[in-house]
Amino acid sequence: MSKNAYVKAAVVISAVAMLPLAGCSSNAEKASNGDTVTRATTGDLAVNGGARRFDGDQSGAVPEAVNASSAKNVILLIGDGMGDSEITLARNYAHGAGGFFGGLDALPLTGQYTTYALQKNGKPNYVTDSAASATAWSTGTKTYNGALGIDIKGAAQKTILELAVAQGLATGDVTTSEIQDATPASLFSHITERDCYGPKETAEDCATDALENGGPGSVTEQLLAAHPDITMGGGAETFAQTANGGDYKGKSLEVQAKERNFQIVRTASELDAISKADQDAPVLGLFADGNMPVSWTGPAAVRQGYLQPAAKCADNPERGSEVPELAAMTKKSIELLSGSDKGKDKGFFLQVESASIDKRDHAADPCGQIGETVAFDEAVQAALEFAKKDGNTLVIATADHAHTSQIVENVTEEDLQGVAEDAKLPVERVRDIVYPGLTRKLTTADDAEMTVNYGSSTDVEVQDQPHTGTQLRVAAFGPRAANVVALTDQSDLFFTMTDALGLSRS
Amino acid sequence: MSKNAYVKAAVVISAVAMLPLAGCSSNAEKASNGDTVTRATTGDLAVNGGARRFDGDQSGAVPEAVNASSAKNVILLIGDGMGDSEITLARNYAHGAGGFFGGLDALPLTGQYTTYALQKNGKPNYVTDSAASATAWSTGTKTYNGALGIDIKGAAQKTILELAVAQGLATGDVTTSEIQDATPASLFSHITERDCYGPKETAEDCATDALENGGPGSVTEQLLAAHPDITMGGGAETFAQTANGGDYKGKSLEVQAKERNFQIVRTASELDAISKADQDAPVLGLFADGNMPVSWTGPAAVRQGYLQPAAKCADNPERGSEVPELAAMTKKSIELLSGSDKGKDKGFFLQVESASIDKRDHAADPCGQIGETVAFDEAVQAALEFAKKDGNTLVIATADHAHTSQIVENVTEEDLQGVAEDAKLPVERVRDIVYPGLTRKLTTADDAEMTVNYGSSTDVEVQDQPHTGTQLRVAAFGPRAANVVALTDQSDLFFTMTDALGLSRS
Repeated sequence: MSKNAYVKAAVVISAVAMLPLAGCSSNAEKASNGDTVTRATTGDLAVNGGARRFDGDQSGAVPEAVNASSAKNVILLIGDGMGDSEITLARNYAHGAGGFFGGLDALPLTGQYTTYALQKNGKPNYVTDSAASATAWSTGTKTYNGALGIDIKGAAQKTILELAVAQGLATGDVTTSEIQDATPASLFSHITERDCYGPKETAEDCATDALENGGPGSVTEQLLAAHPDITMGGGAETFAQTANGGDYKGKSLEVQAKERNFQIVRTASELDAISKADQDAPVLGLFADGNMPVSWTGPAAVRQGYLQPAAKCADNPERGSEVPELAAMTKKSIELLSGSDKGKDKGFFLQVESASIDKRDHAADPCGQIGETVAFDEAVQAALEFAKKDGNTLVIATADHAHTSQIVENVTEEDLQGVAEDAKLPVERVRDIVYPGLTRKLTTADDAEMTVNYGSSTDVEVQDQPHTGTQLRVAAFGPRAANVVALTDQSDLFFTMTDALGLSRS
Repeated sequence: MSKNAYVKAAVVISAVAMLPLAGCSSNAEKASNGDTVTRATTGDLAVNGGARRFDGDQSGAVPEAVNASSAKNVILLIGDGMGDSEITLARNYAHGAGGFFGGLDALPLTGQYTTYALQKNGKPNYVTDSAASATAWSTGTKTYNGALGIDIKGAAQKTILELAVAQGLATGDVTTSEIQDATPASLFSHITERDCYGPKETAEDCATDALENGGPGSVTEQLLAAHPDITMGGGAETFAQTANGGDYKGKSLEVQAKERNFQIVRTASELDAISKADQDAPVLGLFADGNMPVSWTGPAAVRQGYLQPAAKCADNPERGSEVPELAAMTKKSIELLSGSDKGKDKGFFLQVESASIDKRDHAADPCGQIGETVAFDEAVQAALEFAKKDGNTLVIATADHAHTSQIVENVTEEDLQGVAEDAKLPVERVRDIVYPGLTRKLTTADDAEMTVNYGSSTDVEVQDQPHTGTQLRVAAFGPRAANVVALTDQSDLFFTMTDALGLSRS
């Protein structure tokens, strides 16, 4: 086993994983069976050892992956709603059961973390939303669902992005959702209700937070005040709103952004043309009015969808070539931040979110969530590629909470007949018993059928599929990556990242 | 941070976790906030850093936990059906959201593994059963659901227990299910259908495997031939069957066992009295006719159970004092194996299974599955306690596949009214939409409410809740424990364990 096994693995795997997807259905190429560590399986899964992912003892490779140095840069990548179930079903579909995500699965150090939120009375809420969850890692403080950047009593908590800005690091905040959505907003917001995107909603629903009432303002106004060097995502719509208070009272948020020197870009071409991002000219990428369009589409899960023929996913025709990919936004952000004077001098903090794994899971849309997981993996690959060259960058990939989707047994009409006979029931009755939620069968990269079950709602127009409370995978590469091993809580991430960057938390 | 942080953690935690449970409801004691690594949170979860599980940088502790030496002993502990969701809901209930399992959560090295089975045509089956799953780690070969110890073409694969017996190690196989059930049987069986427990079923359903037809015999007959030093669990009933072929034709399996020198024990007291276990006098613990009774009981999940008052679990009144606990069976096995001549000389291989996490999850019985998860953790603690003293023992704790149960948002009648109003639907209609499966709300150790959802069947009498296909947590301590880090497949375990023990696989 090579001493640099992880590095070699990533080089080999990246070359494979970056191949263009043919449509989105057959990315089943396997990674080379070099002297890699974790890897895709090779050849015949049915022979002895054919499904192994390790070639030999990893006792040398694991300590090799541990680096106790401080980190100059931190890249935190969040797959929203991406529990282990969501990872596995995306891997099965895109790469096959024995396949391998070139980024997500190439991270050498791994663990689990707990994600619970709190109630306002301080007791746990076992199922977190994205706001309380993100507040945990952005501030180190647990809060209640819906709150951003405050504790359960409403006191503002300093965020890692604010600390980084104040201490002279370059900063970036990238997402595929509206940039006001909970995960990106957790880096710069202190607000009682996550939905208070603009002055209008804030006046109505978060009055104490409104600028006109002496508060910190709406989420968007807090973004403009926080002034990250890079912010990218959707959410352009809110910028048409007008400030009700503060220094920019009476002006639209777009005008305010320009007066605060933000370079607003709206297309992939405009983003390509950007050559700097700093406090004099921060980049504000607004690539959609709302959330950015997802990469893949396909049939949603429906009642008794498990009995329908297996489907395949397709590229989303509503996603134009001027909508930048998450990996492209990630690469551009890394290039701008690492190349800036501040980045060169003091380093950078960058958060990257694939937001619509969650949103499409809420909607019981397997192809949507799988495509966004694949896009997330490509962003992780981009981060890893930089970190391996740089040698001084901590990369962490995890999720904020798990979600509903489960891989369940394929069940046929014949199976139902068998169950009905055993139970002495009409088969119609059995059809109501088996998989009462929404299901869909997909044909995977293995050319095999996989059934996905969303078992918490029968109609997502009325009630979407909810988050779930299971502990999650957290994986990392680079300095301080060892801090994700074993069982942690997501609030530990704040301390791991600020310690790694040497940021003062006071 | 102490260099021996993991060891200290385990000592501290064990002292807490071994306190007797008061009933089974309030084991919320928190571990000491010493200089431990992963730990329970202490004090106020709502303050900054209050939910952290780490006290500082773990970059020193992780390499400390890596040990490249070979192992004299391996203890593999399997929580059947124990996905991360099942672990989390048991932790939440028994110890609180910020709590800590003294065994399961104290293992210092962690990763994820894939669990898929194969179809007979070699393509993946994304949801494994316990037979194909166990065959993967017991032989290193993936097979089809239902098969034990054979590949997809039916060829017998050598198991780690057979290799250990042949190469002079002491061996043990402990479970809470019937000892013929898939997980324990995977160590000594080579059979086309897992249900062929005795000569009768084998003649009917596995004719080619029957002794009278030149096959290896039923599962029970293969157990007696394999002759592990220790076998413990339920499954006494099958021993009343009579052999149809082979050297013991016409004799009951119980008589055969005695003639083959097995010491049959049926109670905790009889087990206590045993002082040796070796090839001259192997121990056969048969503590129930079928599966051993579970530790805890409580109300099963039902349709719209989420709207009922939150329940608590209770000790199972049907479990008598003469039914040994899993931790007690584990301790006794370790004592006998490590104290035997073979154990002292060459070491031992021991597998321990908590089987009814799975069985109670199939039955949508949250208290049942939680109690068995807590019992599993106690067995892991027993294994860890030995391994830490011994210094030469690899302990691995994982599951064979994940299961249905999910922690979902608490939903009240008031919430349903709100959904109904938003959707302009009668509330009765909304009640059919939200959580269409089986649910139950429990009051946890935090004195907070947690809703558990089993969303794949509405009637477990007709169709039980199925396994799920997500990747799983695998965690380890001791020599070669580093081989569970990052992403592996469960078939890797066979190679990790046989390599650690220095077993020849040919």
